[in-house]
This record gives sequence, C-alpha cells and structure tokens, in this order.
Amino acid sequence: MPFASAGTTLGAMNANPTAAVLIVGNEILSGRTQDTNSGAIARFLAPLGIDLMEIRVVGDDEGEIVAALNALRSRYSYIFTTGGIGPTHDDITADAVAKAFGVGIDYHSEALALLAARYDRPGDFNEMRKRMARIPFGAELIRNRVSAAPGFQIGNVFVMAGVPMIMQVMLEEIAPRLTRGHVLHSVTITARIAEGVIAAALAKVQAEFPAVAIGSYPFYGPDGFGVNLVARGRDAQSVENASQAIAQIVREAEPYSR
Amino acid sequence: MPFASAGTTLGAMNANPTAAVLIVGNEILSGRTQDTNSGAIARFLAPLGIDLMEIRVVGDDEGEIVAALNALRSRYSYIFTTGGIGPTHDDITADAVAKAFGVGIDYHSEALALLAARYDRPGDFNEMRKRMARIPFGAELIRNRVSAAPGFQIGNVFVMAGVPMIMQVMLEEIAPRLTRGHVLHSVTITARIAEGVIAAALAKVQAEFPAVAIGSYPFYGPDGFGVNLVARGRDAQSVENASQAIAQIVREAEPYSR
Repeated sequence: MPFASAGTTLGAMNANPTAAVLIVGNEILSGRTQDTNSGAIARFLAPLGIDLMEIRVVGDDEGEIVAALNALRSRYSYIFTTGGIGPTHDDITADAVAKAFGVGIDYHSEALALLAARYDRPGDFNEMRKRMARIPFGAELIRNRVSAAPGFQIGNVFVMAGVPMIMQVMLEEIAPRLTRGHVLHSVTITARIAEGVIAAALAKVQAEFPAVAIGSYPFYGPDGFGVNLVARGRDAQSVENASQAIAQIVREAEPYSR
Repeated sequence: MPFASAGTTLGAMNANPTAAVLIVGNEILSGRTQDTNSGAIARFLAPLGIDLMEIRVVGDDEGEIVAALNALRSRYSYIFTTGGIGPTHDDITADAVAKAFGVGIDYHSEALALLAARYDRPGDFNEMRKRMARIPFGAELIRNRVSAAPGFQIGNVFVMAGVPMIMQVMLEEIAPRLTRGHVLHSVTITARIAEGVIAAALAKVQAEFPAVAIGSYPFYGPDGFGVNLVARGRDAQSVENASQAIAQIVREAEPYSR
C-alpha cells in the first residue's frame, strides 16, 4: 500500500477506550426514518476521548441483534444500542440482549417502581407497559427522566431508547460510568478548491506528521464545491503544526482552484 | 419468545433480493459529519423491492474495510459502499476492495479517458487525480456525470463516492443493473397517543396479520408526543386490512390518549 490509512495511524497511537453503536430499527432500513442517533452518540463520545470504531444498523430481528452484539461486545470497550425497548410487540431488544449474554430476564423491581410512579392512574400501568420493566439479570438501570422507562447496562453494553430526545438524557445519565481517554485535537480548514489540486502536497504533510490523521472531505452543493481538510491527533502542537502546513498549501493553491 | 419479530415475519415471506450498505468514513465516526448516504440508499432500494438488511460504518482502515466487505458480500445479494474513492492519500477503498476480492488493481483505460477529458488543462490531470482511475481487475465502471471520477461494480459490490450529490447520480446509473423484487406496500398512521395505551390491541392485530409487519415508532418533540404506526407487507389487501384495524384501535383509544 503506497498510502497510509488515517484510521490506522490514529489506531496505532491511541490506547483510548473504543466503542461501537448498534442501532436496532426496521424503520431506518426501510428508509422511513433517517438515523440521527449514531451521529449524536459520535458527538457525545468524541469529547470523552472514547474512539467510535464502528456503527451497525440491523432490523428488529432477535438473531441479527444477538449476532451483532456478540461480534461487537468482544471487540470494543463499550457498545451503545438504541431502539426496541418500548412496550409494543416489535420491541425485542431486551430479550435479545439477555440471549446474547446467556442470562435470564424478568421484571425488575426498581424498574417496575419507576414505571408505576409514572403510570399512576387506574389502568394506565397495563401489561404491555410492564414489559418495559423486563431487564436481563445482572443489568443496572439507566434512568430516563423524560418518559420514565429505563434503559440498562449489562457488562460493557448500554441499552438505550430509540427516541432521540430520550436517548440523549440516557447518554447524560451514563456519562459518569465511562472511562475517558485522551481527547483528540482537531482543526478543520475549509477551502473552495478541488482536493485533486492539493492532494500531492497534502500527502506530503501526512508523511511529515505521522501522528496526525489528515482527512480530506470534498463537498458539492448548491453553493459550489470545496473541501474540508481535517487534522486530528492527540498532540495539540503537532495538530497545530500540521494544520499550519495545510493552510499554507491552500493559500498557494487558491489561484488554481479548479 | 412471546412476541414475533417484525423483521423475521417479513424475512420469512420474502424472496426479495437483499442488500447491505457499507459507509467508509472516519468523518462519520468522529461525529464531524452526519451520514445521509445510508438513508438515501435505503429510500432508493425500497421502491425497487430490494430489502436493505444491514448498514455498517467503518473507518478509513484497509483491514476494517476488507473484513466488513467479505462478511457482507457473502451474505446479501448486493453491497453498496460509499466513500474513499477520491484523489487524496486517505482514499483507500479501491485498494481494499481489490484485496477483499483477491484481485489486482491498476489504471483502467476507460477511467483514465473519462478523467483526462474532465481535467483537460495542462497540469490538471496530475498523479493524484490519476489515482481515481485505479480500478480492481474485472470491475465495471459506474459513470458519474457530476465530477467524472467513476465508481465501479465488482461482483455484487457497488463502490460509490461519498459526496451525496455524486452518490445519487451513481445510484441512478446502476439502477438498471439491479434485479428487482416485490415492492412492500406500506401504510403509516400517525396518532397523538402514547403507544403503551394501544400496545395490547396492536399485538393482537399483528397476530391476526402474520404476513404484515406492524411497527410502532414513538416520537417526542417540541410539538408533543405521539406514535407512527406502520403496516408493511407484500400483499396490498392485507396491508390495507391491517391498517384499517390499526385505525380502529386509534379511534377507540383517542379519549385515553395519555
């Protein structure tokens, strides 16, 4: 391979905790709903110094959820799942997680209490809503001040709601439980030039700063084209130096922008 | 398991072509960019009757790309990748795809011609831009009328650009190459009620219509809460009947909306 991979470079220099996201949702795969949870989790993890390595979306299918969970949880420090923990028949994530861990699942007394307090009118706390209190053995609850129905943590897996607003409060709830790593410093330079004009010079900067991952992300839109050049790394000074070198390249290229 | 999985139900009744999406992009995993390509591919596949089964996002890392590609391509009818085929040092997808298929990679004469025609001013068609003409042996080009740099198809894998506008024209280009399946009929009913109120009745409808997948997708937002109830299936009449039953449930539940 003549060109180093940015991901490999960062991977080699980091001993940060790693993470994967597992989105459970037929509605994403059918194109009906645009997933925004994985992006929200990515933005949550970055300032904690936890490196998100992989995102998967699978359907509401027990076998698929179990297989994905077991592939991911043995590989990364933390797994964050969203979706499938509500009261309806298509909410099967809790059972799938129990199966993946090979543990039983039953009504959890604290979860029942939380839900009973929320559904306090006669008849409101029905059998289907009680399903939301079914928690795998050995799991710890993740509180949810929006709709009361808790998520849970079992081992290194955090099981959260699919509704973005609820997932967000669950992320805040679990933040103190996570081991933090070194936050990557990042500088972005946006240039109204074609990346092909500066690609050779950029590769030289990458070679000069092996501990900085330099990414080139072109964009085309109604306002025209351009490129976002991103330098990321653990050492602030190296990132600053690399970004200065990139800025210089951009200044020199400006007249030949096409 | 007391509750059938919606995904399983549909899977059992369908002999549709299947698909997976593989997004290559550090910028998605870092949270810098919100992925919209997977949603666009999902919306492209649905009306073709091709069932999207899985989405994965991995970093710009050759080993990760190869492993994901080989896991997915043996399992699904079609794999769609986006990202990593530009001119810069961090564009490594073409090499990774060649490696996954165990084939060589070299400059492709037709790809060179397409790019040479686009970069026709002296010095414009530089070495880095020529990288975009490196295509695995045995692959067929996917034309791109926006920026000329082609994607390619090798076996059941379609390798496309990461820039959404360019990916979109590549999808249009490959549509005629895809075997189509039976389009799923879908009816969505939006109700301003809590899903827990109707969950038991909904489960009964699901049991009554095993060939229809009934999904319940709650939402919470600034305008209040509610739920989208989606019936999907191959038989239009069954979907219609199931959605009528759901509509009836919603009408009866309205007064007890909390």
